[in-house]
Amino acid sequence: MATERWDGLLLGATLATLADDTGYGLIEDGALGWRDGVIAYAGPRAGLPQDIEARTDLVIETDGLVTPGLIDCHTHVVFAGNRAAEFEQRLQGASYEEIARAGGGIVSTVRAVRAADEDTLLAQSLPRARALVADGATTLEIKSGYGLDFDNERKMLRVARRIGELLGITVRTTFLGAHALPPEFAGRSDDYIQAVCGWLPRLHDEGLVDAVDAFAERIAFSAAQTRRVFEVAHALGLPVKLHADQLSDGAGAALVAEFGGLSADHVEYTSEAGVAAMARAGTVAVLLPGAFHVLRETTLPPLAAFRRAGVPMAIATDCNPGTSPLLSLRQAMQLACTHFRLTPEDALRGATVHAAQALGLTDRGRLSVGQRADFACWKLAHPAELAYWLGGPLLTMSFAGGQRLA
Amino acid sequence: MATERWDGLLLGATLATLADDTGYGLIEDGALGWRDGVIAYAGPRAGLPQDIEARTDLVIETDGLVTPGLIDCHTHVVFAGNRAAEFEQRLQGASYEEIARAGGGIVSTVRAVRAADEDTLLAQSLPRARALVADGATTLEIKSGYGLDFDNERKMLRVARRIGELLGITVRTTFLGAHALPPEFAGRSDDYIQAVCGWLPRLHDEGLVDAVDAFAERIAFSAAQTRRVFEVAHALGLPVKLHADQLSDGAGAALVAEFGGLSADHVEYTSEAGVAAMARAGTVAVLLPGAFHVLRETTLPPLAAFRRAGVPMAIATDCNPGTSPLLSLRQAMQLACTHFRLTPEDALRGATVHAAQALGLTDRGRLSVGQRADFACWKLAHPAELAYWLGGPLLTMSFAGGQRLA
Ligand SMILES: [Zn+2]
Ligand SMILES: [Zn+2]
Repeated sequence: MATERWDGLLLGATLATLADDTGYGLIEDGALGWRDGVIAYAGPRAGLPQDIEARTDLVIETDGLVTPGLIDCHTHVVFAGNRAAEFEQRLQGASYEEIARAGGGIVSTVRAVRAADEDTLLAQSLPRARALVADGATTLEIKSGYGLDFDNERKMLRVARRIGELLGITVRTTFLGAHALPPEFAGRSDDYIQAVCGWLPRLHDEGLVDAVDAFAERIAFSAAQTRRVFEVAHALGLPVKLHADQLSDGAGAALVAEFGGLSADHVEYTSEAGVAAMARAGTVAVLLPGAFHVLRETTLPPLAAFRRAGVPMAIATDCNPGTSPLLSLRQAMQLACTHFRLTPEDALRGATVHAAQALGLTDRGRLSVGQRADFACWKLAHPAELAYWLGGPLLTMSFAGGQRLA
Repeated sequence: MATERWDGLLLGATLATLADDTGYGLIEDGALGWRDGVIAYAGPRAGLPQDIEARTDLVIETDGLVTPGLIDCHTHVVFAGNRAAEFEQRLQGASYEEIARAGGGIVSTVRAVRAADEDTLLAQSLPRARALVADGATTLEIKSGYGLDFDNERKMLRVARRIGELLGITVRTTFLGAHALPPEFAGRSDDYIQAVCGWLPRLHDEGLVDAVDAFAERIAFSAAQTRRVFEVAHALGLPVKLHADQLSDGAGAALVAEFGGLSADHVEYTSEAGVAAMARAGTVAVLLPGAFHVLRETTLPPLAAFRRAGVPMAIATDCNPGTSPLLSLRQAMQLACTHFRLTPEDALRGATVHAAQALGLTDRGRLSVGQRADFACWKLAHPAELAYWLGGPLLTMSFAGGQRLA
């Protein structure tokens, strides 16, 4: 219709639309228009409706590159304190056992989260979320898992929700009660899982849970325990995902696929059978190169098998104080290219289209008509540069739902 | 004297002074005062001269952490174009030979630098220098080496000087004519070295050269050729440094030490004899973990030998388009801890005190009375965090010579 009005229009940049299943979908001298938070046009400037500029509230002439807003589909960004001291002790030669004996490890983060009231936890977590947004993220997944009792898991999820409201971005919350065994349940992991299964419906009632996750590993919870949590999630209609096969092949990928899970995350040790199960279930492989980098792991995820089977690969920061103090999804893309030999295109798709899929979101991840107006503008000429540079402020501006972010 | 006036005073932060040869030199609730660009006080707030606040022009109450300004003692930040396309081709499976045949590699950067006029080269290089400054650098070394003829080497060095003036930071220029053999000298490397030796005095006459560097490696220049360049430098009274032993042990470290060189850089393959020569000469080992990371090298520099011999270790970005697209010295510190197992304290000393030494500068690198008022303020509680986080805007402000940087 010739009289339609748009809320915003970006002119002159190169668009990396990712509109098709392969290729960047580059459009030179592009135009991106939006209305009511949704993309109304993404194409060459030359193809714009006649006189649309005059019927658009905000017109921005720019250059550089525009990509879909980045989607960080696996973070633990809500925590208190940090573990830089432990990072330092390890480099000074302390063993994991020595650090654990000195009160370090995940237990120290649990202690700090429990000790912080909700506002303090928010104040400490918000700068990290802001850092992720400052490097292009417009959607964040945020997990609980450092509270490990009802009140403190609830506090974490509430803080996650408040971060989304304060920053004007989408936050998807994930309940990760089955992250680690809290000290008060030492030796009673089945009892703890039973407690977790009791908290989940109550947290869901409060609207605090978008998905459910667990840490299935020899050092954490068994497949049987994970299954109990997933069954509660299933009964509530909540999607599941899993920290799977990070340190050994625990058949975690197959387990989460059995529940039609959104994603299996880490997946360094996933077997061919696990890959096949993921492919059948449409489960995304979420690669977390930050932890791989910091822990100096050497076993790569089965990338060739994922490719052969058509399992989509997403990339996330896994931002957490112990194994992945990563404040930039772009840096995770760099690490994925360096350590895992992903191509820059794989990396960008992994931080957009495939990351959306890992969150069960179909309304974002590409620049195409009808998708949310979530996009990031970069001082770059080509999208391969996103995974090329380490460091640097490269973002010029970003929008979520058509609203400019800080 | 009770009536002295200060230009500035920072109150309330934790200072990491690095005043002594070991330890961070932490001062809680610290105060940092300066006058005429030089530190007048660095210590506890409680020890300030009486009423000094009333006699100071600028008083800033802050929290967080203050460190010496970071010193990036090895960069190739002046260049045109970038090599993200080549980075992408490599990850798509192209070999170095294929890339070279397609006109890639250092030759493509030389071509781009030659094609750019001085203002264009400045416009392209300035954002990279700004990025380094935005993450805490207050002193940059910048090399020539992509011009490879008199006019273009001169253009690069002039751009480097202009960057220092525009940003209000110290830039130390290094003439690296002996970086690679330009196409027009193919098969005539001795002739090229003779040309380089002729350009150096002329560039020095123009005040464009603070030090002289070369790339001594089987794929670049021989020890004999390097020696010829160093002899010209020596006759001009210019200090030398060397890209040494990066890919093989070429006895480069011993060669630069023989000339009393400021630093041997890369040094992954330096032998025990090379380490001993460096120790005797007071030559700094400049570690470049960015190239190590990007090239996925596995041979570590002989860190234990450097420590035993008392060779100071500096850390730099080596910011360059081919092997180290690093826009943050803090990220180089993270990589040095992860890949080389340096401690965060080693890393900070390597980016301050030892980096100053690698540039022959004794007036900076620590927060102590009489040093330049070059310092960086961080949203951090402890200096170990500098090497812990990957990504993130963590700098709140920085000063060079007592002047606030953008
Ligand atoms: Zn995780
Ligand atoms: Zn270099």
